[in-house]
Amino acid sequence: MEKTDVLVIGGSAAGIVAATTAKSFYADKSVMLIRKETQVLVPCGIPYIFGTLESSDQGLVPDAALSNAGVTLKIAEAISIDPENKTCKTSDGTAIGFEKLVLATGSTPVKPAWLKGADLENVYTIPKDKEYLDNLKVSLDGFKKVVVIGGGFIGVEMADELKKSGKDVTLVEMMPHVLSLAFDAELALKAEEILEARGVTLKTGSGIREINGSQKVTGITLNNDETLETDAVILSVGYRPNSVLAEKAGLKINDMGFIRVNEYMRTENPDIFAVGDCAEKHSFITRTVKPIMLASTSGAEARIAAMNLFKLSTVRLFGGTIAIFCTAIGDHAFGAAGVTENLAKERGFDILTATFEGIDRHPGTLPDTQKQIVKLVVSRESGILLGGEVMGGKSAGELINMIGFVIQNRMTVDALLTSQIGTHPLLTAPPTAYPLIKAAEMIAKKRRH
Amino acid sequence: MEKTDVLVIGGSAAGIVAATTAKSFYADKSVMLIRKETQVLVPCGIPYIFGTLESSDQGLVPDAALSNAGVTLKIAEAISIDPENKTCKTSDGTAIGFEKLVLATGSTPVKPAWLKGADLENVYTIPKDKEYLDNLKVSLDGFKKVVVIGGGFIGVEMADELKKSGKDVTLVEMMPHVLSLAFDAELALKAEEILEARGVTLKTGSGIREINGSQKVTGITLNNDETLETDAVILSVGYRPNSVLAEKAGLKINDMGFIRVNEYMRTENPDIFAVGDCAEKHSFITRTVKPIMLASTSGAEARIAAMNLFKLSTVRLFGGTIAIFCTAIGDHAFGAAGVTENLAKERGFDILTATFEGIDRHPGTLPDTQKQIVKLVVSRESGILLGGEVMGGKSAGELINMIGFVIQNRMTVDALLTSQIGTHPLLTAPPTAYPLIKAAEMIAKKRRH
Repeated sequence: MEKTDVLVIGGSAAGIVAATTAKSFYADKSVMLIRKETQVLVPCGIPYIFGTLESSDQGLVPDAALSNAGVTLKIAEAISIDPENKTCKTSDGTAIGFEKLVLATGSTPVKPAWLKGADLENVYTIPKDKEYLDNLKVSLDGFKKVVVIGGGFIGVEMADELKKSGKDVTLVEMMPHVLSLAFDAELALKAEEILEARGVTLKTGSGIREINGSQKVTGITLNNDETLETDAVILSVGYRPNSVLAEKAGLKINDMGFIRVNEYMRTENPDIFAVGDCAEKHSFITRTVKPIMLASTSGAEARIAAMNLFKLSTVRLFGGTIAIFCTAIGDHAFGAAGVTENLAKERGFDILTATFEGIDRHPGTLPDTQKQIVKLVVSRESGILLGGEVMGGKSAGELINMIGFVIQNRMTVDALLTSQIGTHPLLTAPPTAYPLIKAAEMIAKKRRH
Repeated sequence: MEKTDVLVIGGSAAGIVAATTAKSFYADKSVMLIRKETQVLVPCGIPYIFGTLESSDQGLVPDAALSNAGVTLKIAEAISIDPENKTCKTSDGTAIGFEKLVLATGSTPVKPAWLKGADLENVYTIPKDKEYLDNLKVSLDGFKKVVVIGGGFIGVEMADELKKSGKDVTLVEMMPHVLSLAFDAELALKAEEILEARGVTLKTGSGIREINGSQKVTGITLNNDETLETDAVILSVGYRPNSVLAEKAGLKINDMGFIRVNEYMRTENPDIFAVGDCAEKHSFITRTVKPIMLASTSGAEARIAAMNLFKLSTVRLFGGTIAIFCTAIGDHAFGAAGVTENLAKERGFDILTATFEGIDRHPGTLPDTQKQIVKLVVSRESGILLGGEVMGGKSAGELINMIGFVIQNRMTVDALLTSQIGTHPLLTAPPTAYPLIKAAEMIAKKRRH
């Protein structure tokens, strides 16, 4: 029987980060990563293999990241775990003994059971599966009209990339706006304007009722009775955690199917951790259990699990997901972290909000200057930042990380108001009207009254 | 006599931020900004009027920022202050009464007295003076060869912009590397490589001894006896604070000529504050008095002064400059905050450093992917971040702000290691190898041993 001190099951972002961090922190321990895929796609890069990149071969995570870090890679499927004997059986008939186990088994796209026609030909999902996606890319070449169902960020990115490759693309979202879990209406509207300007047709405010066709899809019908013709449907309506392996091993699973873990990312078994899409997470702000699946959350969870494998640390805890992410539509970037105004109100927070619209270069006459908008959601009582949303040029992708850092450390707008912010004509907003600071100033002003 | 509740003297970044923040926090107070310039240039944008922009008219700060904020603008020079009667005399013969005064009088470029030839024709400095710079731009049109003295960021930016406009440009820096107050050799070398690849000739490691010529400049001689022919010399060897007005009013001035202030940015007179290039500042880390002149420092000082004008706040203090800034050379951005490794060692800190080199898109096959390097300087004892340096594509401009935020809040690498970082293929480094986090991980690993 093979033996390893640390066994990580799963080869996507969470697994890679868990394995490499474990090896970095516990250099004298052996670390093995086992995964069933021969090649792994950059998960967030998947939409881009349909437009920006030529093929999925350009979207691969290099295995060198593992070997350079001293992690042993084994290609095989984990088929069962024996927690008592601390072994994992694999599809090649062998077993691997471990001292500590990290489950990073990921998630699988959902085809809703209630959706009539979901099993017709040319109805697709977006799994993290290179072979499936390569076939999908070939099939899509033959189609003129494509409907994408679900206006979360994967749906938005897929729609934009398919448009880029020359198709007639319609994006359907049940909620009044796309990206509405991350953005309030004011910024979601900006995203919609840009998508439409880029040629994507939007159908918001009415969900899909059924997919039409007898063998192949011919169209869809919305809840408002509208019908659309299409050659293909791409469903991006959610993912479910891959937790069967954990469940069979007797680990606790929550109501949404996620593996239960504590703030060390440890299951009730002190030798077994779970991270990433398969692991239970709470909202950092609202404290409710959340089905969030994002690389930002996974990465932090994986680092925290790895650091706590052999020695618990009271300062290296996972305090809950702030659901931070960013996306790009053309040259525009959108980012969000923490709660939206809508969600904060719904959950009963007494909040103040402020939105400042500025520019991301200075003077604004400089080439490639773009609008930059920052919205902040702040606790009225304490001044603590609860959420932020940004839109701008590509630098807004990093800007949201500063906002996320303030949120995660439960800091107040005062921490922003006293901050020294590096600015430069060709790189950032002006020092006199840096939108993040101006929005904080607007909040501080409101708190005085 | 005119009267205003708050009088701000100086119309550049610090003055604008002080005036607009004062009006925002104390809406019922009248705020007046007085400046001698009819038009104000974006100070950090000055180098770009020599290449990227067509003329200085494109580099103006719009006065609407003041009027929209409810600040009264008066164009006149402040010629004396009477602290006892709380009045300011101006060049137009009138006086302005004030309740609170903010001095934001800025700085003036230095022509070193010891430098022979500094007063020859075609020897220039870079003041924040539109008329001077407009004349300089016209003069430069007639020159083929230009030597820039001083490889700080203004010298680097000027050299790159002049090269862009087609000249033969040589940049002279006394220290072994350009930008060496902000960067250790490893990153400074990258900046030098890029400058040279863009056609700028570098002369580092030997300062200027004298400027040659009888009436007009004909060349320069370096300390190592090397001579260079040139049609013009641009001196960017430092600025001195404009503190004569304050000194004449009896306010205390430090040894370097800066107006003395406390952590509220208040002088010993409780009704007079000073901010920006003219105000004394300490290093946040080393606690020594520093002649730092940066918009990042000025902006924070101005906000802090404004917020404390009528009511001191114990949470809105200026803790010292972290000298955070960023600059661009072509498509590459460089940023720095806090102390370099060199300076930290020189001052006696027991430090650990780590440098991680990654990419700023993922996968790296995406168009416009650039190298991204992060260096961290950390206190060994506490894990607290003392300094950071970054190089990358344009997003590195915002990345340094997150590093600066960690430094200013005296947070440790653990705060980074547990951080949720939003990443996106088209906008940022990968979640599995985000250079800031990887560098923090390298530090944490070193701290275990």
